[in-house]
Amino acid sequence: MSSAASLQIDSEGRLRHLLTTEGLGKDLILSILETAESFLPVGKRQIKSAPLLRGHTVVNLFFEPSTRTRTTFELAAKRLSADVLNLQMESSSKSKGETDLDTLLTLQAMGVDVFVIRHPDKGATAGFAAEVGNEVAILNAGDGANAHPTQALLDAFTIQRHKADFGNLSIAIVGDVLHSRVAHSNIHALKTLGVPDIRIVAPEALMMEAPEQLGATPYYDLASGLKDVDVVMGLRLQHERMHEKKINDLPAYHRDFGLTRDNMRLLKPDAIVMHPGPINRGVEIDSEVAYGERSVILEQVRNGIAVRMAVMAMIAGNRQY
Amino acid sequence: MSSAASLQIDSEGRLRHLLTTEGLGKDLILSILETAESFLPVGKRQIKSAPLLRGHTVVNLFFEPSTRTRTTFELAAKRLSADVLNLQMESSSKSKGETDLDTLLTLQAMGVDVFVIRHPDKGATAGFAAEVGNEVAILNAGDGANAHPTQALLDAFTIQRHKADFGNLSIAIVGDVLHSRVAHSNIHALKTLGVPDIRIVAPEALMMEAPEQLGATPYYDLASGLKDVDVVMGLRLQHERMHEKKINDLPAYHRDFGLTRDNMRLLKPDAIVMHPGPINRGVEIDSEVAYGERSVILEQVRNGIAVRMAVMAMIAGNRQY
Amino acid sequence: MSSAASLQIDSEGRLRHLLTTEGLGKDLILSILETAESFLPVGKRQIKSAPLLRGHTVVNLFFEPSTRTRTTFELAAKRLSADVLNLQMESSSKSKGETDLDTLLTLQAMGVDVFVIRHPDKGATAGFAAEVGNEVAILNAGDGANAHPTQALLDAFTIQRHKADFGNLSIAIVGDVLHSRVAHSNIHALKTLGVPDIRIVAPEALMMEAPEQLGATPYYDLASGLKDVDVVMGLRLQHERMHEKKINDLPAYHRDFGLTRDNMRLLKPDAIVMHPGPINRGVEIDSEVAYGERSVILEQVRNGIAVRMAVMAMIAGNRQY
Repeated sequence: MSSAASLQIDSEGRLRHLLTTEGLGKDLILSILETAESFLPVGKRQIKSAPLLRGHTVVNLFFEPSTRTRTTFELAAKRLSADVLNLQMESSSKSKGETDLDTLLTLQAMGVDVFVIRHPDKGATAGFAAEVGNEVAILNAGDGANAHPTQALLDAFTIQRHKADFGNLSIAIVGDVLHSRVAHSNIHALKTLGVPDIRIVAPEALMMEAPEQLGATPYYDLASGLKDVDVVMGLRLQHERMHEKKINDLPAYHRDFGLTRDNMRLLKPDAIVMHPGPINRGVEIDSEVAYGERSVILEQVRNGIAVRMAVMAMIAGNRQY
Repeated sequence: MSSAASLQIDSEGRLRHLLTTEGLGKDLILSILETAESFLPVGKRQIKSAPLLRGHTVVNLFFEPSTRTRTTFELAAKRLSADVLNLQMESSSKSKGETDLDTLLTLQAMGVDVFVIRHPDKGATAGFAAEVGNEVAILNAGDGANAHPTQALLDAFTIQRHKADFGNLSIAIVGDVLHSRVAHSNIHALKTLGVPDIRIVAPEALMMEAPEQLGATPYYDLASGLKDVDVVMGLRLQHERMHEKKINDLPAYHRDFGLTRDNMRLLKPDAIVMHPGPINRGVEIDSEVAYGERSVILEQVRNGIAVRMAVMAMIAGNRQY
Repeated sequence: MSSAASLQIDSEGRLRHLLTTEGLGKDLILSILETAESFLPVGKRQIKSAPLLRGHTVVNLFFEPSTRTRTTFELAAKRLSADVLNLQMESSSKSKGETDLDTLLTLQAMGVDVFVIRHPDKGATAGFAAEVGNEVAILNAGDGANAHPTQALLDAFTIQRHKADFGNLSIAIVGDVLHSRVAHSNIHALKTLGVPDIRIVAPEALMMEAPEQLGATPYYDLASGLKDVDVVMGLRLQHERMHEKKINDLPAYHRDFGLTRDNMRLLKPDAIVMHPGPINRGVEIDSEVAYGERSVILEQVRNGIAVRMAVMAMIAGNRQY
């Protein structure tokens, strides 16, 4: 088990931090989804707040810019009545002087209860979790191409609301899996939840290393990958993480791996289409698919608030004083 | 009637969105001003909050930067006890991938109640209003050179507090009317409120098209335009919207169209001087006029908070579930 | 007495603004520290809020960027239940058009109760305090190399919690005193509190003018400066305020003036090490000193929240309506 996986669980088996879906037990995942279910109605009420984190301080500490993800965490925390601070920092990894850890420890000294952290380096949030005090909880909002656990949990939550039984599903994850923290976190969570058929569909240049070791099957051809699946997850082309330009020819990528009205006919009749957003319209997905009848993309967004409220409430509640 | 004008009124004649002052009925405008009157004392109390929007989510979605206007909406929403998020986005109009509408629909899925939107394109907020659900209200904080309705309403409110009867006034709008959403929105509102004499005073290069069609009279000479008016509204030179440089010679502009202590003698003795801010000192207005005894510029700012509170409370209350 | 020093005290001797530690009476400083003491437990509670500024508006108006200092004021204000706005402005000092004072007066008209202001120009906050109304309080968060009074107060508070009696202490302030508002504010406060031995330790290029006039003694040699002191305060090398590059050779600076495990042996056995942060690791201070057993650097951060809550509550309470 990775250090992130063990750091995040306390001695009583409860969630202390959320760093990765790797090693999260099935019961724990299901209890997060159940808690999220209870928060879902809050977002539909006129008065969308719960007092659970009143007087608590949540800091969104982003060492990588992201308006969209930051917004979901900010909203989730505010609906729990927390005081929320947004800090957009440049990572110090290449500079001298104060390090990212200094920044974190300084903020901890100010009495922060929950840190929501995005960082360009793999494992950064686990590194922070190893250093903070018992009264602080850390929530990984994405560390490099490594993990994005709340996205995987909201995806599982969304699937659960549409499909009776994880033990019976075929799920295709399509696109830039190599640079995708979403893909990695989803494979771990879906495997734990018992999904028997997880397909990783990508061109060779974007295929992850050894998907079989994680219990997934690689497909290099979109048609075979989509055939009769219950769920298809499109992934965003992560231009910003492609240091050597892997994909130059976007029209060719769209032709070979884009989700279109045509290839949606290959899915099971009641299949759903997912995407973590933001979408590149006409690149990895067509508008008519993204906003089509199978699409649950906007449901994922709505569910994301409930799942993040659930995780924040749980990890804030499991700190020790 | 423009689509914006019809979209913003619901089937019972109530304000659903605020997109433009065009087509707003006199009774509706007066009821907004009356509601604003009731919020004015809140800003003078030590405890400046009202619980009307507690648990509601207001998003300031600005596709064009504006610290000042964003601040007034943020303060108004916070004084109504709403949760407020500020999102500064670059408009996607020239980029590929996720569109501005995708951004809006994503935020809508998060459970936003009121969007305050500024956008560089004329008609953008009406376009958004046509797409959102019944539970969402949109407030136009400026769309290109088209409309800025809360500014016009706070101007009307400020005039009403100084002048007995709209049906009796001469009002001069001076300066860069061509690029001014403020001017357009003011003409519509003042006309509806019954102002008989609306003068548009500008050099030819900055004159709007056909002011007569809106019920206003063009003046190309400042002295005639200011003669015996009750109200003069200076406008900011909108450098950022002058794509072909219309005005290069600022000293000449100041000499011919600047509001100075000298030409203020032309107004009626009890005339007031207004400006939507921020002022270019010594360009369209002199400091001694901006802070002089006739000036109500800072009152406009204070009134702006009350008017924005009124509009937000009304449109949030008129959504349908 | 400077104008800042007299402006900040009202006719009844109470704190109206906080602009400088110069001229602050000993009793007033001690009462601030006592108030801070009462706020310290708030930061350790699960529910970290006090309702003292509910419905009040606090604006962090920063004409110079600073994430860290802004964050401490934002947290302090939120824990007092205030509505907080963060405005990052560029100072207009070199531009035309709306001036910084226009910005301030506009915000005042919106009903702001407390301004926390950082500005690159010496004396800027005192200039603002001379212009605002009786219902507005101003808190200086740093004006050029002039003053940073809350830092000096939190330093005094931290010393008081470790040392029995100010009247008995030797304190060394080490480093870039020339560009340091922290150093200036600390000397004033410590002198008033009765510290008999204040040493200013710096290379000639960074020595302040005439420290003797403020009651401090210059040292140009680190070993003599540190000998038997009770408290050492490291200062950050202020690259951003060194307009002529004063220090090019950082390794030489570290060798001659860096705080290291070696030279810490010169201090009294129970001496404490302070630094206002953010630290330049390995330049003015080594990591093992910054996080060593003598270090109270993170305590300073925690205390800073309590001191800022105390000052905000006091100046907000002393406004006149």
